[in-house]
Amino acid sequence: MLYEFGLKTERQNFYNITGKVMEALTKSGIKEGIVLVFCPHTTAGITINENADPDVVKDMLLGLDRAYPDRAEFRHMEGNSQAHLKASAVGSSQYIIVENGRLVESRKNN
Amino acid sequence: MLYEFGLKTERQNFYNITGKVMEALTKSGIKEGIVLVFCPHTTAGITINENADPDVVKDMLLGLDRAYPDRAEFRHMEGNSQAHLKASAVGSSQYIIVENGRLVESRKNN
Amino acid sequence: MLYEFGLKTERQNFYNITGKVMEALTKSGIKEGIVLVFCPHTTAGITINENADPDVVKDMLLGLDRAYPDRAEFRHMEGNSQAHLKASAVGSSQYIIVENGRLVESRKNN
Repeated sequence: MLYEFGLKTERQNFYNITGKVMEALTKSGIKEGIVLVFCPHTTAGITINENADPDVVKDMLLGLDRAYPDRAEFRHMEGNSQAHLKASAVGSSQYIIVENGRLVESRKNN
Repeated sequence: MLYEFGLKTERQNFYNITGKVMEALTKSGIKEGIVLVFCPHTTAGITINENADPDVVKDMLLGLDRAYPDRAEFRHMEGNSQAHLKASAVGSSQYIIVENGRLVESRKNN
Repeated sequence: MLYEFGLKTERQNFYNITGKVMEALTKSGIKEGIVLVFCPHTTAGITINENADPDVVKDMLLGLDRAYPDRAEFRHMEGNSQAHLKASAVGSSQYIIVENGRLVESRKNN
């Protein structure tokens, strides 16, 4: 089963899509299995991370920006090579295990 | 179904294997499902990215090289720790969703 | 089939869990398919890499630490933003293809 949704984004940010994934899971009726969350855009990625403290996301934006800064040597006309690099670093997809109709998460979120 | 192929590579580069993946998909006859593209070498990775402008790949090679430079402190005798790091950063595999016998891609490739 | 196990870790290190994965595979009795190795903690990741030379792991720890250093600007109270970044860089899961009841590996490990 394939569920699609679009998301309008800023130039750079993290967006919590857990609700969308859970919604699709509920619709599917699947109780045991695996969810693949895939983003077909090559300047965006999917990652699993903490959302309890919003500072984690701010720190991650900063850390990724420093690991893959915009470089004077970059030649791609669209000027978004940095975004392509970050997308490859973070990855296009994530898999989450489903047990009893729920996403398997860490018991203790750290 | 498992399809294998080998690829001779330079010390560092990106190679477009989309054709190989589509070929395997056609052979399999699968119309709905998921393709796993897996690279068993630990100094190479699989990523999904743009190929329209060849400068994207050049910028990505440069950006990855700067994020994971060769370091004087590296001790691995084979001298390819940089490649191991890049492989872990990019990842060993990618999943692509199959719908109507075709790989699901971004409608607008940016 | 879902197999779980816990692992006590130091602040930062790599742990070889291949034996655990093979044990789960044997228990499952599966001969052809795919193993998903998933880590639900957001400050730890799963990667496939070389274990022949222990220096690879040391070099990788160093290289990841330099790509994602601890930064004075980080605001996350728990002080582990660096670990969140590394976890997203390496990824939460890995897939390994199973053929004849065995994990598909590189013939020549480099």
